[in-house]
Amino acid sequence: MTMRQALDRLTIETPGKGLTNITAPVLRWVAAQGLQTGLLTVWCRHTSASLTVQENAAPAVRADIARFFEALVPEDAARYAHDDEGPDDMPAHLRTMLTDTQLSIPVAEGRPVFGTWQGLYLFEHRRGENRREVVLHLLGEI
Amino acid sequence: MTMRQALDRLTIETPGKGLTNITAPVLRWVAAQGLQTGLLTVWCRHTSASLTVQENAAPAVRADIARFFEALVPEDAARYAHDDEGPDDMPAHLRTMLTDTQLSIPVAEGRPVFGTWQGLYLFEHRRGENRREVVLHLLGEI
Amino acid sequence: MTMRQALDRLTIETPGKGLTNITAPVLRWVAAQGLQTGLLTVWCRHTSASLTVQENAAPAVRADIARFFEALVPEDAARYAHDDEGPDDMPAHLRTMLTDTQLSIPVAEGRPVFGTWQGLYLFEHRRGENRREVVLHLLGEI
Repeated sequence: MTMRQALDRLTIETPGKGLTNITAPVLRWVAAQGLQTGLLTVWCRHTSASLTVQENAAPAVRADIARFFEALVPEDAARYAHDDEGPDDMPAHLRTMLTDTQLSIPVAEGRPVFGTWQGLYLFEHRRGENRREVVLHLLGEI
Repeated sequence: MTMRQALDRLTIETPGKGLTNITAPVLRWVAAQGLQTGLLTVWCRHTSASLTVQENAAPAVRADIARFFEALVPEDAARYAHDDEGPDDMPAHLRTMLTDTQLSIPVAEGRPVFGTWQGLYLFEHRRGENRREVVLHLLGEI
Repeated sequence: MTMRQALDRLTIETPGKGLTNITAPVLRWVAAQGLQTGLLTVWCRHTSASLTVQENAAPAVRADIARFFEALVPEDAARYAHDDEGPDDMPAHLRTMLTDTQLSIPVAEGRPVFGTWQGLYLFEHRRGENRREVVLHLLGEI
């Protein structure tokens, strides 16, 4: 058995603020590498968009998540010194800190070991952004 | 030197909601693989239970953590559209997002490099759940 | 191609509470290992200091982050049972849980794939601490 690595950049097109399910393109990329057992790492190259693993079934979950983060980290310019790019600038950084910039997931039988209800999401925190870049790294063996 | 991988599923029995220290079974599993240097990844296969690294000494810390998350993400059905499985359903998803689904820790001399006060915990967010599954992946060399 | 591992401990000297940019010493360490493609893992060996990836440009971001966490997790002893080491003891644990203990980042062409605006920070949550230890692990090939 020989270890192999694969590394790529994936551009994610989103409809804007909120959660975009990126499970399918990530699974396709992993499948295309032809490795059976290994470790997949996903890295988000931004400080105003992040990653999260969430329930992939009920759409109401995504609306509740959006509402929760609006309340926890309000887009209220009066609270922040840093607002170079508008009222969603600093909240975007804070929401990124509270969620994930990186996730690593074991791969078994050629597939990341997500649980039945787990989906991988890009969490866009800015208005007016609709292209983000994530790096995919896979280390494993055939 | 040759790299080797080990992959397993660990079922965690918990007393229910709150933090369960899983450091001991994880250390036992790592020791059993016989690898000296490497990287251990722990993945929680749920969206209503999570992982966290916390102080392993004072029991009061765990009570304070529980209280903090009850206040930050209240089990108040009026706040959430998604409550298919009761008032702890949506808070469980949000608490999972704010903590960890995955942790990767370097292994040196056959042991994960936890600091003196660090313990690894499964954080159960639902009532009535008492079995959870984590995946352990170890990549390393003898 | 042969996979190789490197493992080290880095002592971080900080001016105390708040964010300390540790990108430069981490990049120097990675460059010194001479590996082109791989995966870098950074592990913080404490439960009252953490890691985070944040905007590396505007200093106002760091002040806003400090203020946000002071409000979200107040240093108010009346709220916590655990205060063995003072009013910043329990808030330090909670702030650690809400941010990161570990980050893994792919390495390409000998460099972690940070985005243009991303910096890696040690987030010190205690007063009176100014030395922290992180473990660096790199797995990759020349």
